[in-house]
Amino acid sequence: MKELMNSIVEKGTILGEGILKVDSFLNHQVDPELMYQIGESFAQKFNDRHVTKVVTIEASGIAPALTTAQALGVPMIYARKTKSITMNSELLTTEVYSFTKQVTSTISISKHFLNEEDNVLLIDDFLANGQAAKGLIELVEQAGANVVGVGILIEKSYQQGRALLNDMGVEVVSLARIASMVEGEVEFLEADL
Amino acid sequence: MKELMNSIVEKGTILGEGILKVDSFLNHQVDPELMYQIGESFAQKFNDRHVTKVVTIEASGIAPALTTAQALGVPMIYARKTKSITMNSELLTTEVYSFTKQVTSTISISKHFLNEEDNVLLIDDFLANGQAAKGLIELVEQAGANVVGVGILIEKSYQQGRALLNDMGVEVVSLARIASMVEGEVEFLEADL
Repeated sequence: MKELMNSIVEKGTILGEGILKVDSFLNHQVDPELMYQIGESFAQKFNDRHVTKVVTIEASGIAPALTTAQALGVPMIYARKTKSITMNSELLTTEVYSFTKQVTSTISISKHFLNEEDNVLLIDDFLANGQAAKGLIELVEQAGANVVGVGILIEKSYQQGRALLNDMGVEVVSLARIASMVEGEVEFLEADL
Repeated sequence: MKELMNSIVEKGTILGEGILKVDSFLNHQVDPELMYQIGESFAQKFNDRHVTKVVTIEASGIAPALTTAQALGVPMIYARKTKSITMNSELLTTEVYSFTKQVTSTISISKHFLNEEDNVLLIDDFLANGQAAKGLIELVEQAGANVVGVGILIEKSYQQGRALLNDMGVEVVSLARIASMVEGEVEFLEADL
C-alpha cells in the first residue's frame, strides 16, 4: 500500500538491531487518515469473506483494527495483555513469547465475544516472528471460530512470521513488506495490497 | 449522548463495588459505529477551538480518540503505560495513581509530538477520580501546550473527577453522566452532549 510505504520512508526511523521506529504516525502518534485508508484497503480485500469480527491485540493494533471493522460493518475485539477487573467471565487465553522483549505474556479474550459461527479477520501492526498473530489464531480456534486471514501493516519479510502463519493454513495480507533495513534505508518487497 | 446511554442501559452490566462493565461495546469488544458517532460529537463540540492534537491513554481511550481525531482532521497521540523499546527519545512523564487498582503507574508521551503551539483535546473512556485525566493534563502542560478540554465517554458523577479537573481550569464534556448505580439500574444526569 503506497501511502503506508511512503509514510515509512518519510517518517520512519531505523534504530539499531533491526528496529523500525514508526511512532510518529503508527504506534504512539497516530495518523487517522492513514488508518482510515488502511481500514478501507483491508475491508476491500476481505469483503467477500463474510467476516463477522475483527480481532487484534492491545494497544498498537487497535487503531487499524477499528477502521477495518468500521469499513466492514462488524465489531472489533482487542485481546488484552492484562486481566481487567471487569473481565470476570470465562476467558480464552494463550501464551505469547516476545523475541524482542524476551518475555512470555498471557493474552486473553472473553468467551462471550467469539463463537463457532464467527469468521474472524485478524489485524496487527507488525509481523516479525509471528508469535502475536499465532497467539490470536489460537484464541480464535479455542472459540471454535474460523480465521479468514491476517492483515498486517508492516511485515519484516526477512523473519519467519509469514511462513509460520502460512504453515498454519492462514493467509497473510501485508500492506508493506520489508526485505531489508541496511544503512538506514528500507527496501521493500512487493506488497500484497 | 443518547446512543451511548442506550448502549450502557442495553449492553452494560453493573458489577459489585460501583463497577460498570461495558466490555461488549466499549473496552474489549468495540462498536465501531458508536465510536464514529462519538468522534463526530466531540469534533462538533470542539470544532471552533483550533484543536491541533487529540491525546488519550492506552488502551481503552484509543478507539474514541482516533475517531475524534479523524473527525477533527488532526493527529491522535496515546500516552503509553510502559516504555516501548523504540521510545528512546526524551519523554514527558508523570505518575498516575489508580484508586481501583491501588497502584501508581508511570505514563509517558514523547517530547517530539507536543509543543507550545499545540491545542490539545483530551479523550478518555471513563472519568471517576480523575487521576488519569489529571496525568494527561500534566503531560500536556509539561510540553507547554494548551488543554482545550477533556472529552469523556462515561462519567461517574458521584465521584470527584469533574470537580478536580474543573478546579484545574479545564472544561469537561461527558457523553454519559452516571448519577448512581443502585440495584442494577443506572441513573443518568443530563449529559453535556
